[in-house]
Amino acid sequence: MNYPSKLIEEAVNEISKLPGIGKKSALRLALHLLKSDQSQTEFLTRALTDLRTKTRYCRQCHNISDAELCQICSSVNRDESLLCVVQDTRDVLAIENTAQYQGHYHILGGVISPIAGIGPTDLHIESLVSRVRQNPEIKEIILALAPTMEGDTTAFYIQKKLADFEVTISTIARGIPIGGDLEYTDEITLGRSIMSRTISHTKGN
Amino acid sequence: MNYPSKLIEEAVNEISKLPGIGKKSALRLALHLLKSDQSQTEFLTRALTDLRTKTRYCRQCHNISDAELCQICSSVNRDESLLCVVQDTRDVLAIENTAQYQGHYHILGGVISPIAGIGPTDLHIESLVSRVRQNPEIKEIILALAPTMEGDTTAFYIQKKLADFEVTISTIARGIPIGGDLEYTDEITLGRSIMSRTISHTKGN
Ligand SMILES: [Zn+2]
Ligand SMILES: [Zn+2]
Repeated sequence: MNYPSKLIEEAVNEISKLPGIGKKSALRLALHLLKSDQSQTEFLTRALTDLRTKTRYCRQCHNISDAELCQICSSVNRDESLLCVVQDTRDVLAIENTAQYQGHYHILGGVISPIAGIGPTDLHIESLVSRVRQNPEIKEIILALAPTMEGDTTAFYIQKKLADFEVTISTIARGIPIGGDLEYTDEITLGRSIMSRTISHTKGN
Repeated sequence: MNYPSKLIEEAVNEISKLPGIGKKSALRLALHLLKSDQSQTEFLTRALTDLRTKTRYCRQCHNISDAELCQICSSVNRDESLLCVVQDTRDVLAIENTAQYQGHYHILGGVISPIAGIGPTDLHIESLVSRVRQNPEIKEIILALAPTMEGDTTAFYIQKKLADFEVTISTIARGIPIGGDLEYTDEITLGRSIMSRTISHTKGN
């Protein structure tokens, strides 16, 4: 497309690098910012810059955090015996939204994917093992990964790594659609699938 | 939703102010930027800031431009007798994409909309009238506005304003779906609707 200015072309190119945004949508967003008050662009760019440069991660669960320990890890009202392993922050938000789960989390930061070049060492799996080793309060590890091949591979790898520990390993029930993303699952289904999780390995067995 | 950090909450709030982007998509985009190289956020925010602070508009047609006169207005290969009136830049791009039109453009910057508080003086209508008055080469004004109530109101208003000039006023053929946006019309339909425009006022009649 022959854009009317280099500035708009550059903006469209950068916006359309974002996932799920094509050139037409990018142009629409760019023109929207041009028409809106300049402060909207200022607030947006400042928020994105701050997010990218100042974001911290919880040293225990690796979730995005405002402090060294996140709100969930530092809460005294959470059940320390349960540890739910998820891919990313969106899954924590989705599960928290169900209000069905009161345990802790461990964020892997992704799933094993040979195609995308993501191996076990690229994920927070070692720190999960240390966490289980160091905290005898942890009785059950709930694997809440997407029911995809990558999710299954990752779950299998984690089970092997935790096989020698005195913990129960469970998997959230496959009420979630096969191939589906956790975050797009409705709250009732997701909440129920946590409650009716299947146990794949029992402590000491 | 209870976001894991103020930074991510702020970013989601600002991103979701953009049209067509909800909180879930905004979170997805924010997490994408967090995972990507910092340079992606830098390029994006710089492009948006430059766009908003440095964009210029053509003094003749009011389209976005790199110079005082845009590429189309300064081209010697365009037909000076035809002037196509559109709502915004996206419509120019859509019509240029059809490769059916070789005339000039005039960008109104919107359409008359009492509900949105947009009146004739908020649009580049006076400058259209001056342009027609000052340039006797202009023989035909093609109104290429969306076939909505606001588009029709605007077209009617412009026709009244130009009634005393020696120009033909035409409207692009309604091959475009009623209520539809120009930019989402396929190129063939849009190109054909320009070729088979209907004449609503003939020069001197
Ligand atoms: Zn934490
Ligand atoms: Zn121009």
